[in-house]
Amino acid sequence: MNYPACFEELVECFKMLPGIGNKGAERMAYHVLSMDEQQVQRFSEALIDFKTNIQYCKICGHICEGEVCDICQDTTRDQTTICVVESPKDVFAMEKLKEYHGLYHVLHGTMSIMDGKTIEDLNINSLFERLNDNIKEVIIATNPTREGETTALFLAKLLAKQNIPATRIANGLPIGSNLDYADELTLLKSLEGRKKI
Amino acid sequence: MNYPACFEELVECFKMLPGIGNKGAERMAYHVLSMDEQQVQRFSEALIDFKTNIQYCKICGHICEGEVCDICQDTTRDQTTICVVESPKDVFAMEKLKEYHGLYHVLHGTMSIMDGKTIEDLNINSLFERLNDNIKEVIIATNPTREGETTALFLAKLLAKQNIPATRIANGLPIGSNLDYADELTLLKSLEGRKKI
Repeated sequence: MNYPACFEELVECFKMLPGIGNKGAERMAYHVLSMDEQQVQRFSEALIDFKTNIQYCKICGHICEGEVCDICQDTTRDQTTICVVESPKDVFAMEKLKEYHGLYHVLHGTMSIMDGKTIEDLNINSLFERLNDNIKEVIIATNPTREGETTALFLAKLLAKQNIPATRIANGLPIGSNLDYADELTLLKSLEGRKKI
Repeated sequence: MNYPACFEELVECFKMLPGIGNKGAERMAYHVLSMDEQQVQRFSEALIDFKTNIQYCKICGHICEGEVCDICQDTTRDQTTICVVESPKDVFAMEKLKEYHGLYHVLHGTMSIMDGKTIEDLNINSLFERLNDNIKEVIIATNPTREGETTALFLAKLLAKQNIPATRIANGLPIGSNLDYADELTLLKSLEGRKKI
């Protein structure tokens, strides 16, 4: 006995989502069964609205509801600094700080040998189009992973060729952590990056 | 800076799904961004189709596309045995065996003090309406958890009152497992349920 066709179809759809396998998708489908009609309608419409309205900003690549994101439109922000991040999530993480007031550029990924992603696959040409004499600093804030570091180094070289000052966010022990629980590389980076107090 | 409204809305929708928190929902929303328009359309329609077409069988409570499920409609099946399970998932699990050819009854849950669910909250009245002189056996196949066992015992008592022979699926060591990895209760049940070979 098989599942009804539209049950199977919904399970297949849930399986498209990241981290969701067969069992998880089935569990979700059963849950949809217990949701009321309005909730399902709302969910269905949210998907379409999202896909219709959310685009990538044509300047920086961040997500937005128009053609250009709020940050790029905001002329009160510091127009001399660009912070390069891997994904729109990172923009929100930085913005939560309320400490950085410059612009952003979202690469949409990193160079990765494993995934066969090269510099060509990243949103990087539009970054170089943005660079002009006004730009005083490019902060490279890709993740401190192997792929993030590779991308950062590569990007730093390209920027050096154009004489654009590039900086990299610091590595070290996270606040509240313990030395004896830190991995060796983090501890090493923490030691290398020591500062006078 | 906040997420765009329709991003937030989709995140809220994903959070309605079981086991999905804020981070997971955001990850899913970002994934939807990378899906093409047709896939999102398909997903959206699958939700509505599912909710519109899938109902609970009015006889046994199993999921089906019409009013009565395929199993209840199938007159070639053994009409003298009813297997009582907790959820439609369990019906599919049993059907995979291709060994059981009787009918089913889906309780949609178990009695649970923790969740404040009593026998009244289960699909149990319709089970007793189905019981007649033709029924030779009711197999109680709720899960071997505390809640499943409680429900099984309670159900067995109700069936005994009506002189309906009830059986309970066996507990013991799963095939391929090791004695020294088994929990005590499973081993005890396995010992109690020993058979002559």
